[in-house]
Amino acid sequence: MENLPDLDNLKFNADGLIPAIAQQYDSGEVLMMAWMNRDSLQRTLQSGVACYWSRSRQAFWQKGESSGQIQKIHAVRTDCDRDTLLLLVDQIGVACHTGRRNCFYLEAQEGGWQEIAPVETDPALLYGKAH
Amino acid sequence: MENLPDLDNLKFNADGLIPAIAQQYDSGEVLMMAWMNRDSLQRTLQSGVACYWSRSRQAFWQKGESSGQIQKIHAVRTDCDRDTLLLLVDQIGVACHTGRRNCFYLEAQEGGWQEIAPVETDPALLYGKAH
Repeated sequence: MENLPDLDNLKFNADGLIPAIAQQYDSGEVLMMAWMNRDSLQRTLQSGVACYWSRSRQAFWQKGESSGQIQKIHAVRTDCDRDTLLLLVDQIGVACHTGRRNCFYLEAQEGGWQEIAPVETDPALLYGKAH
Repeated sequence: MENLPDLDNLKFNADGLIPAIAQQYDSGEVLMMAWMNRDSLQRTLQSGVACYWSRSRQAFWQKGESSGQIQKIHAVRTDCDRDTLLLLVDQIGVACHTGRRNCFYLEAQEGGWQEIAPVETDPALLYGKAH
């Protein structure tokens, strides 16, 4: 995208961040939720691939940079309050660092959080043995 | 649900809150994102209808209490970091206070945020003229 929409009328929080939900554009699967700052959103819109902001590293998090599991952007939406983003993406491979397709694999069931999705790709293959 | 999973191993933020994404359980439509504290999540799991925490009012936000547009819970999931919730719900009526089916109706397009979804229900009918 060349002519970006106005990013300054989005509501970033006190840390300058806005939550971004990533959803597989065709299946509707919710893949993950992460955070963006203004600059990472700008990068995302300009490049067409998702770039988040890592709160733990305080640095850009170019999704898939290490693992190859990139997210191609199909659309970027915001909500009525302009304080949350919804990214419609095409997820290459798996979204979750555990090797699962999406991050939401723990479901509340009677008495505990149950794993409901299998590991599809060995994380050692995604990140190398050092991870 | 009677025997709740352990809510204390979820990661609430410094304000005691965790973001909760609501998704229509059958169509996959992402409806909204709001916040829960431990007590509103407990209420949600026990009652089977979504109850959020209103940051502006600092009070429980029983979704649909005024409008009748409740969310029946089909599943509650958390992610690999245990710091985000995904609610699979059956949305009665519309999720958005603007009368749209979901809140993410503004899409980044060349030069601006474009409205991509129509108002389905007059908000005056949802909340009365005083809203």
